[in-house]
Amino acid sequence: MPDVPTRKDVLAARERIREYVAMTPLLTNSTINQTCGLDIHFKCENLQKSGSFKYRGAANALLNLTSEQLARGVATHSSGNHGAALAAVAQRLATTATIVVPDTASAFKRDAIRRYGGVIIDSGATLAERETKLAQVVKRTGAVFIPPYDDPHIIAGQGTAGLELEQQLDSVDEVWLPVGGGGLAAGNVLACGQQMQVVAAEPELAGDAFQSLACGQRQPAMPPVTCADGLRTALGELNFKILNRYSLPIKLVSDAEIVAAQKLAMSCLKLVIETSSAVPLAGLIKYGAHNAASRRVVILISGGNVNLDRL
Amino acid sequence: MPDVPTRKDVLAARERIREYVAMTPLLTNSTINQTCGLDIHFKCENLQKSGSFKYRGAANALLNLTSEQLARGVATHSSGNHGAALAAVAQRLATTATIVVPDTASAFKRDAIRRYGGVIIDSGATLAERETKLAQVVKRTGAVFIPPYDDPHIIAGQGTAGLELEQQLDSVDEVWLPVGGGGLAAGNVLACGQQMQVVAAEPELAGDAFQSLACGQRQPAMPPVTCADGLRTALGELNFKILNRYSLPIKLVSDAEIVAAQKLAMSCLKLVIETSSAVPLAGLIKYGAHNAASRRVVILISGGNVNLDRL
Repeated sequence: MPDVPTRKDVLAARERIREYVAMTPLLTNSTINQTCGLDIHFKCENLQKSGSFKYRGAANALLNLTSEQLARGVATHSSGNHGAALAAVAQRLATTATIVVPDTASAFKRDAIRRYGGVIIDSGATLAERETKLAQVVKRTGAVFIPPYDDPHIIAGQGTAGLELEQQLDSVDEVWLPVGGGGLAAGNVLACGQQMQVVAAEPELAGDAFQSLACGQRQPAMPPVTCADGLRTALGELNFKILNRYSLPIKLVSDAEIVAAQKLAMSCLKLVIETSSAVPLAGLIKYGAHNAASRRVVILISGGNVNLDRL
Repeated sequence: MPDVPTRKDVLAARERIREYVAMTPLLTNSTINQTCGLDIHFKCENLQKSGSFKYRGAANALLNLTSEQLARGVATHSSGNHGAALAAVAQRLATTATIVVPDTASAFKRDAIRRYGGVIIDSGATLAERETKLAQVVKRTGAVFIPPYDDPHIIAGQGTAGLELEQQLDSVDEVWLPVGGGGLAAGNVLACGQQMQVVAAEPELAGDAFQSLACGQRQPAMPPVTCADGLRTALGELNFKILNRYSLPIKLVSDAEIVAAQKLAMSCLKLVIETSSAVPLAGLIKYGAHNAASRRVVILISGGNVNLDRL
């Protein structure tokens, strides 16, 4: 595979992970359609295994390893959905995932990793501390590092969500999705960016992807304060290349708009969705479709791992 | 149709309402399967139109009316899911639903009725006050009263949920559902009670169906205090006849068990479900399958109309 993956890699990923992932359903709701004046279909990756689209990329990355590599185990330092997805795929493939987790991570996130048999290694909260701990794990165990988003296999795997639309729905004009590290966005630009308009939405408080594409140079992450905690991370390098080449439109929304969209989606769709997953709906409510002639829009619901005690 | 409906009436209802209702999906979750040691499939009537199975019965009842009756409108005094479902079906059939609502009903319930164009008439909180108001509405407008559960058309309509299982899943051993007024339970006993074991679960704090079947005589409702507010109502007469003839097994669960099951279902399935809908899962966790040899169990998730502000 070349450094920058292509649609061919997404097609290959689909075949590779086919028997491991769920083809997630599309749901519609008349109240939301009336609110937006559009025909909106929600692609429910919150119903994906491990509760998010991250399972797709993790499955593709692990199924690309040799059996010898796989036997040594895998490791990462994401305590969010990527960590849980990696643990779930590793369990399915009878190997071990070691997840480096900052001291500050909630019991909720730790439980999600442990549920799938993941091994948790505690570290300090800074990226440097986590990377040091991860390097120690890799050195000690020989485990293969699986990055959360800035990786061609991960990007190709995430794009399989958009590929499924071809089988599920005709005449899609636009696909809206959240952008954080950019794995989901880059993968789906590759998968279906020529067939339909891909549009991203991003929190104003984590608008580094918006700024990066505006100035043509990758910008650092903003302070991690947005309520959409899955999107606080910086845009990846490879992801930036793909999104910049596509000139991905990015719509900014406030945290208040995100929370309102999350409540609307949960009460109308009867789905538990993360704040990060409400970002595209917030964008669509705020700005309308990207192209005035667009009628049918798909929103990728990225995940459903919500700590219900906090809701 | 005879006084007590039969499976034939459920089959006829299915044809009558086919183009109006959603065939709701089945979802599974490995964590819940491990918790119960069973292969559990959740039939998602929370994703039904108007957010509950009540749409099925309301559709069947209204499609049984003559066009002259339908033109006069319909009315009921249920402020819960039946009221919202009746309003939604009436709107679809271009007629008017008038819903008598007690002063004490929440803004959340009123909004659900108004969203579908239902006309709200306020009344006092007692059943007598509501019945008086309803009689006035019927007299003034000529609207047809559509009861919430104690009615052969409503019962036959609710049974269409269970009929769909034949097309969706093989080798079902047991179907678990909540029992309140008994429309869902009676309809599904008729629909699939011979093909699979139907089992009901009921809150201890609203255990009148359990007591009615235990002593062979219909018992009055208990004080309306259980958190499963959709199940506070008394078992209907026609419903009692059907359930008593079938010797429906009923499992009692505490409010604490219901709340724990609701949280488990929402966090694992990523679905918004009502407390009433968590009652069968609570029963299955507490007692296991009704027959020791049972392996594959369907749980009917009755509705998803949850006031998220209160969660």
